[in-house]
Amino acid sequence: MRYKAKVSYDGTDFNGWQIQPEGRTVQKAIQDALFKLCQTEIQVTAAGRTDAGVHALGQIFHFDCDKQFKDIRTAINSQLPEDVRIIECEPVDDEFHSRYDAKWKYYSYMVNTGEYNPLQRNYVYQLGEQLDVDAMRDAGYLFLGKHDFTSFNATRKDEMENQVRTIYQLDISEHNNVVSFDFVGDGFLRHMIRMMVGTLIEVGRGRITEEEVKNMLEACDKDAVHYNAPACGLYLVQISYEVF
Amino acid sequence: MRYKAKVSYDGTDFNGWQIQPEGRTVQKAIQDALFKLCQTEIQVTAAGRTDAGVHALGQIFHFDCDKQFKDIRTAINSQLPEDVRIIECEPVDDEFHSRYDAKWKYYSYMVNTGEYNPLQRNYVYQLGEQLDVDAMRDAGYLFLGKHDFTSFNATRKDEMENQVRTIYQLDISEHNNVVSFDFVGDGFLRHMIRMMVGTLIEVGRGRITEEEVKNMLEACDKDAVHYNAPACGLYLVQISYEVF
Repeated sequence: MRYKAKVSYDGTDFNGWQIQPEGRTVQKAIQDALFKLCQTEIQVTAAGRTDAGVHALGQIFHFDCDKQFKDIRTAINSQLPEDVRIIECEPVDDEFHSRYDAKWKYYSYMVNTGEYNPLQRNYVYQLGEQLDVDAMRDAGYLFLGKHDFTSFNATRKDEMENQVRTIYQLDISEHNNVVSFDFVGDGFLRHMIRMMVGTLIEVGRGRITEEEVKNMLEACDKDAVHYNAPACGLYLVQISYEVF
Repeated sequence: MRYKAKVSYDGTDFNGWQIQPEGRTVQKAIQDALFKLCQTEIQVTAAGRTDAGVHALGQIFHFDCDKQFKDIRTAINSQLPEDVRIIECEPVDDEFHSRYDAKWKYYSYMVNTGEYNPLQRNYVYQLGEQLDVDAMRDAGYLFLGKHDFTSFNATRKDEMENQVRTIYQLDISEHNNVVSFDFVGDGFLRHMIRMMVGTLIEVGRGRITEEEVKNMLEACDKDAVHYNAPACGLYLVQISYEVF
């Protein structure tokens, strides 16, 4: 039987989602929990990988498991470390695929423009500098719509030929010295959001112009952008399987 | 010259404020930073100790230092680990004492009554159970005013003869499944807030009555109370040197 699960995790102490030779990963933590419950190796597949330090409020993954459970969510949670928690786990159609079936993804990035806060250090990027939100919004509109994001991602060209993605929505808001960047799109390439946010921050600091951002995007050149906001401010908020 | 400093820290990875034979402590981190700057041992004295895992938004400490600095706050911060940050540091009268001169202290305790949230696990106690806030407020009034808190603290009687303290204010509020307990008092004994909160939570769950809390308080007996809410939900918010 195939299951679809929604999971929240604190990315601070993980070397990202995907199993690596070194370090803790979320995928490994979940597969270890399933192994303890089922005594057999079960592969889990996520809607999208997250990098080391990136958090998730609503990552989605699927897996196949034939063992019967009264409450599979509680059973898995009982075997997980305290920084990962399954929020939902339900049987789905055998054809369901967490990555291929995803219609849109929602990520959020948070920046503290006020004083350094040690309690937020792993959860909000501590920039400690005021940003021109209007200037960032103006430049942010450049990313909206369908673009080749070759300049704004860390995937090598030979790893993924098609680097065209569509951003449906980009909201930038400020509340109590925290600037939030909310992105909704059909998919995001490796480091794509962090590079867009890093670039918009430079606009907000007055260090680069909207025109320069436009040139970077249009260049479709891996060497065009050198900004990459830290992982700790990034949250995978939601994956949707319904059309936007 | 004597300095008064305000410091914020994430208590998660500290074995409390006070220097211990084992583990990182906030006092040691600050004294190490001062040693690096001044090349001499400088003792810092806090308004109150915090236990392992307890956070501070506005702990106050004082110390004596004769070296001249252009900006002592920035100088100390440059030598501190990322989970401690000096917010203010100013010269004061040589007679100022962070502990003896404090007029009131404000602590806050946070409980999540909703679903377990892995991102909050070190910052909000994850109870995961609804609480009767009105019942907790009613029982909380018992703690208001001047009482012998022998039953509600972990200090041994022979360590501190006078266990009478005055609580000026206790507000209990709920917002988005987080219940906050805000305490203002002239001082708090070891584990006192965590034991009061732990007891009020039992009232909120309907496991003990207001009458039983009254009996515990009046007993002035070290064995009367067995509840102690986890350290992670507790914040030292503010120390005031002006009369309430």
